[in-house]
Amino acid sequence: MKLAPLFDRVVLKQLVAEETTKSGIVLPGQAKEKPQQAEVIAVGPGGVVDGKDVTMQVKVGDKVIFSKYSGTEVEMDDEKFVIVKQNDILAVIE
Amino acid sequence: MKLAPLFDRVVLKQLVAEETTKSGIVLPGQAKEKPQQAEVIAVGPGGVVDGKDVTMQVKVGDKVIFSKYSGTEVEMDDEKFVIVKQNDILAVIE
Amino acid sequence: MKLAPLFDRVVLKQLVAEETTKSGIVLPGQAKEKPQQAEVIAVGPGGVVDGKDVTMQVKVGDKVIFSKYSGTEVEMDDEKFVIVKQNDILAVIE
Amino acid sequence: MKLAPLFDRVVLKQLVAEETTKSGIVLPGQAKEKPQQAEVIAVGPGGVVDGKDVTMQVKVGDKVIFSKYSGTEVEMDDEKFVIVKQNDILAVIE
Amino acid sequence: MKLAPLFDRVVLKQLVAEETTKSGIVLPGQAKEKPQQAEVIAVGPGGVVDGKDVTMQVKVGDKVIFSKYSGTEVEMDDEKFVIVKQNDILAVIE
Amino acid sequence: MKLAPLFDRVVLKQLVAEETTKSGIVLPGQAKEKPQQAEVIAVGPGGVVDGKDVTMQVKVGDKVIFSKYSGTEVEMDDEKFVIVKQNDILAVIE
Amino acid sequence: MKLAPLFDRVVLKQLVAEETTKSGIVLPGQAKEKPQQAEVIAVGPGGVVDGKDVTMQVKVGDKVIFSKYSGTEVEMDDEKFVIVKQNDILAVIE
Repeated sequence: MKLAPLFDRVVLKQLVAEETTKSGIVLPGQAKEKPQQAEVIAVGPGGVVDGKDVTMQVKVGDKVIFSKYSGTEVEMDDEKFVIVKQNDILAVIE
Repeated sequence: MKLAPLFDRVVLKQLVAEETTKSGIVLPGQAKEKPQQAEVIAVGPGGVVDGKDVTMQVKVGDKVIFSKYSGTEVEMDDEKFVIVKQNDILAVIE
Repeated sequence: MKLAPLFDRVVLKQLVAEETTKSGIVLPGQAKEKPQQAEVIAVGPGGVVDGKDVTMQVKVGDKVIFSKYSGTEVEMDDEKFVIVKQNDILAVIE
Repeated sequence: MKLAPLFDRVVLKQLVAEETTKSGIVLPGQAKEKPQQAEVIAVGPGGVVDGKDVTMQVKVGDKVIFSKYSGTEVEMDDEKFVIVKQNDILAVIE
Repeated sequence: MKLAPLFDRVVLKQLVAEETTKSGIVLPGQAKEKPQQAEVIAVGPGGVVDGKDVTMQVKVGDKVIFSKYSGTEVEMDDEKFVIVKQNDILAVIE
Repeated sequence: MKLAPLFDRVVLKQLVAEETTKSGIVLPGQAKEKPQQAEVIAVGPGGVVDGKDVTMQVKVGDKVIFSKYSGTEVEMDDEKFVIVKQNDILAVIE
Repeated sequence: MKLAPLFDRVVLKQLVAEETTKSGIVLPGQAKEKPQQAEVIAVGPGGVVDGKDVTMQVKVGDKVIFSKYSGTEVEMDDEKFVIVKQNDILAVIE
């Protein structure tokens, strides 16, 4: 069983935020918009989305920062995923 | 009696969420936006929708995850359906 | 006396929902958006609506499901009608 | 003294709704959006409105159904008028 | 000292509404959107406004009906003016 | 130290409103949107802003009326400035 | 570990506002929209964003004034960053 996102959607798997380690990304709990660290699991085909041509910039395996509140959480085979639009991904962690 | 959706609309039949089996998709009850597993029953012709050309990406028989709150529920011949716009379908389950 | 809708508007006559028969479409009373079964009475000419070219997809006599809250009710010659934009028609019943 | 509407605006004079006659249009008092029967008094030139080309579809003397809440009421020479955008006119009564 | 409005803006000077004379425009006090009679004092150059080409339709000296709530009041040399976008002018009084 | 505004932004220095002199612009305190008299200190390069080509119409030294609430106040070298988009400038005072 | 912003996003590092020195930018605490002084750490590639071509105007090392509330705060390797869209950068400090 696999999720194939439509259009410019991306399936993410949230990484456990290492809130206390020095090299982890600490997500400030008081922030209104909670940024999240995640791994890209599946990427939609892009193409014409809402009349505009969208090219996918992220690929499977990328670690990314995304804006949590725009995504939809799904649970499959006891794993939790988040489906977001690519535009809700803020940055790739290199 | 059959529903023929207009434009980019899609008729879905919700699958019963197997909330406890390991391989089912469990829909977290506390989520603000309830994702849903459904089967595609009928697909609109696409074409120019709101001035933008829309190509239909899903087909009858596809199992999909959709965003429940954007759809409209109808009941016909004692069966319940949901009519959504294609854009409210997040991913196809393969 | 006849209503000639402008642009992409459609005049509908609501059918009495046969809520208890097996083959009727039962409209769930608890839904936030009440879908409705109706017959198309008059169809606007389409054309350029809000800068976008709209082709009319429904014709007089079609039985349709529409989204009630976007329409405007009028009463003429003791008959009630609803005027909706074509985009508020979800599906044709075949 | 005459009102010459700009762009796609239309000056209307509301007709007295014959609420009890059989052939009159009865405006349901409980509707959230009150439709209104009116006569077209003056029609703007149309043309490019908000970057989109608008052709005027109604003419002086037409009897129309319009959506009251989008208009602006003015009173001139002891007569009350309503200025609406053409798009707020739902249908012509033939 | 003179006000030269930018883009599609128009400087208006409100006329005193002759509320009781027969030929004056009476502005209904209870209306949610208060229409106003005014004289055009200065007209912006038009041109490309928000990516759309706007041609100015009113000229200095025109008497107009405008929608008060979209304008900004300024006072200069003890005279009060209102600066509106041309689109907030509903009709010219001829 | 100098502020170089991006795109269609303009740096303004508010002039002290001479509220009681005859020739000054008096800003009515009760107005919901407070217009302001200011001098243009720096002008952005214009160009493509939000997909639309913007030409700058004001120049350094112009005295302008602007709509205060859309700007952002900054203080630099003990002087206060306001950064607005050109579209929030209503008129040039000549 | 490095943040590579997508599209027109920019990674900023906030500078400590020298609120009392004469040459520092003092951020008025009572302002509804808090402007912020920051250094540009990483710049996205620009390109087609939401159907519109965006060219990046800022470069790594620029000191900028940005509008704080549109950004997302992240913390990485014990340093705090803010990810904003370029359009939320008001001016470059020269």
